[in-house]
Amino acid sequence: MKQSKIFTKTTKELPKDETSYNAQILIKAGFIDKLGAGVYSFLPLGHLVHEKIKNIIRQEMEAIGGQEILMPALNPKENWEKTGRWDGLEVLFKLKGKDKKEYALAATHEEVVVPLVKRHIFSYKDLPVYVFHIQTKFRDEPRAKAGLLRGREFSMKDLYSFHTSEADLDDYYEKVKVAYFKIFSRIGLGEVTFFTFASGGSFSKYSHEFQTLSAAGEDIISICDQCKLAVNKEIIEEQKACPQCGQQDLKQAKAIEVGNIFKLGSRYSKPFGLTFTDGSGKPHDVLMGCYGLGPSRALGTIVEVHHDEKGIIWPEAVAPFACHLVSLNKNEEAEKIYEQLVSGGVDALYDDREISAGEKFVDADLIGIPYRLVVSAKSLQAGGVEMKKRNEKEGKIVKIVELIKYLKP
Amino acid sequence: MKQSKIFTKTTKELPKDETSYNAQILIKAGFIDKLGAGVYSFLPLGHLVHEKIKNIIRQEMEAIGGQEILMPALNPKENWEKTGRWDGLEVLFKLKGKDKKEYALAATHEEVVVPLVKRHIFSYKDLPVYVFHIQTKFRDEPRAKAGLLRGREFSMKDLYSFHTSEADLDDYYEKVKVAYFKIFSRIGLGEVTFFTFASGGSFSKYSHEFQTLSAAGEDIISICDQCKLAVNKEIIEEQKACPQCGQQDLKQAKAIEVGNIFKLGSRYSKPFGLTFTDGSGKPHDVLMGCYGLGPSRALGTIVEVHHDEKGIIWPEAVAPFACHLVSLNKNEEAEKIYEQLVSGGVDALYDDREISAGEKFVDADLIGIPYRLVVSAKSLQAGGVEMKKRNEKEGKIVKIVELIKYLKP
Repeated sequence: MKQSKIFTKTTKELPKDETSYNAQILIKAGFIDKLGAGVYSFLPLGHLVHEKIKNIIRQEMEAIGGQEILMPALNPKENWEKTGRWDGLEVLFKLKGKDKKEYALAATHEEVVVPLVKRHIFSYKDLPVYVFHIQTKFRDEPRAKAGLLRGREFSMKDLYSFHTSEADLDDYYEKVKVAYFKIFSRIGLGEVTFFTFASGGSFSKYSHEFQTLSAAGEDIISICDQCKLAVNKEIIEEQKACPQCGQQDLKQAKAIEVGNIFKLGSRYSKPFGLTFTDGSGKPHDVLMGCYGLGPSRALGTIVEVHHDEKGIIWPEAVAPFACHLVSLNKNEEAEKIYEQLVSGGVDALYDDREISAGEKFVDADLIGIPYRLVVSAKSLQAGGVEMKKRNEKEGKIVKIVELIKYLKP
Repeated sequence: MKQSKIFTKTTKELPKDETSYNAQILIKAGFIDKLGAGVYSFLPLGHLVHEKIKNIIRQEMEAIGGQEILMPALNPKENWEKTGRWDGLEVLFKLKGKDKKEYALAATHEEVVVPLVKRHIFSYKDLPVYVFHIQTKFRDEPRAKAGLLRGREFSMKDLYSFHTSEADLDDYYEKVKVAYFKIFSRIGLGEVTFFTFASGGSFSKYSHEFQTLSAAGEDIISICDQCKLAVNKEIIEEQKACPQCGQQDLKQAKAIEVGNIFKLGSRYSKPFGLTFTDGSGKPHDVLMGCYGLGPSRALGTIVEVHHDEKGIIWPEAVAPFACHLVSLNKNEEAEKIYEQLVSGGVDALYDDREISAGEKFVDADLIGIPYRLVVSAKSLQAGGVEMKKRNEKEGKIVKIVELIKYLKP
């Protein structure tokens, strides 16, 4: 795509009404726009990244049998009263229609998915079932000052699993754990994300969070270096030791909760009467698990983890474009190279704007596309472009044919 | 995909709490689920169709320069007060946060897109700009009894265009008109959709609706057979004649409004002070157009237009699968053919359920996938499957190799 065609502009200054780094830099670089506290628009570059993250999540959920659906945000009060969360869930936004009917804006979707699945599950033969959706969630967060890390409106992938037995739930829970690490690894958060023990409610001793180390994190986790896992604040205050090896010498660190998985048991199937019949026709409660991972929060987390003083450094799999072509007064030749890249199947952003080379370089570093390609008299003489990785200092001349081979997905 | 893996089930009866055909048949066939009046979930089959419609719309919007973004649903009251629509738009859902801040749930997005674009547009050099998003909209509809045709929560593609001159707006408006007809043609509504004159507000004499002929339609249009266009009820009551040729012998018909396009002029740029500077630095109001097309309503409309007494007949481009493979007691052979289809790149649904052939045929007709492939002793003897189009009576034996060539996208 030609950069002159993208309607957004980068700015010289950071926005004054933002305190979080991720929102500041994403606004400055033209990826998002702030509408209100915890409420953002995704602009063309941000939308591309957001969609790439969603697609990676979608692929990994489908790989473990997840069936994609889409559930509504506007939820009848009755559903939330049944589970006790109309009054029990503090962050719930509530509203009233002209016909005096009351609604919740879904902050999570157990209250929708359980009665929905109940209309299709009858016997043990219909189980297990795994459904997920990627949908906007609404939460009336009292403090929404962390940019995309804590939104009042944000995107969420929530998967719900339905089982006949605890063993089957346990088994699937482990599969989701593995799938989550695949996702975090693919979006560039694998190495800094810890499997973290959290409180489990009534059904299981623990639930688990996926916590990404970051100074911007609002959580504090205690890391066991031997087991390569962590416990959250709540747990460590209770037991003061690693739940796996028992050692007490844990290292505290700030972290962002990028995902969580939870064994619900019959907590939500019971109020809606979601049962299955066994081989002899006897009814039992369906057992459930729920698994959350927010694409917009993940996007903010990637920015918190991958940046330097000049701007963002996108991991390749989620970058808005594979490469950023910049011309140093060689527009005619650059245009040709851009066309070669595009027809070769390379996803390139071409800075064709009539501004100085210096301004183009500043913007390229700010926007953070993984490979910068510079077309100059020098590079043309050597028969190619100067390719430089965003996180490296030195570039090298690469011929166009090799470039296409290298950058093609 | 194997049908046994899809968690939804078809039902024998139509749902009793639905009066509209589209919702009745989509629920019966397992495409959607009703959460409340005008509020539906998309189940796996319905989600596939919904996404295909969205992607066709997306492609045609990008083809006319549209840049995709994503704007929030939770909108600050101030934005809606600025345009006079906080009190002026009757269908607006309103809510209050715990901090007493008031919000609207976006029923349309002028109040978000104008201040957003204002932060990136300064001079005539920055125009024109075309942005669109595909987002959930909320409207407090007093009567929400038409299934997907009139939702309280529904999907909408809204495109907004920004121009320096009326001529430029007029020119783009024509491009959108052509793109809309491409979309309606691709999703199977081209032949029954009329370009319809509607009232235009203060800026232009007319706006335009795209009206699809259907007995389920809530609108009445008057068709001019000579000009192959229509006028809506409002206009015909005023002028009683075709706006193009002037003839008064117009034919009345029920229709569903599947899209509308509107020249806004400076109606929304003025309240937000969205201006551009000309060559001499003088500021002018930016002129706008807006263009709506709802994927979920389009889905409901397709169902109203394309069905028979047995069920849905999906147009190929939006069908959940390209073909529906059904085995008549030849599961081993059918399984092999399914694998051949899949590895050949054909998007096949394979009914591998242990139910009678009769039940499978009833479900295949109900679900409405364009091609039914039957594997039987007879078809295997002739070296293939019996392929029958959903809307034809007779099938014919087709060899697998030919089938793959024919059904591959």
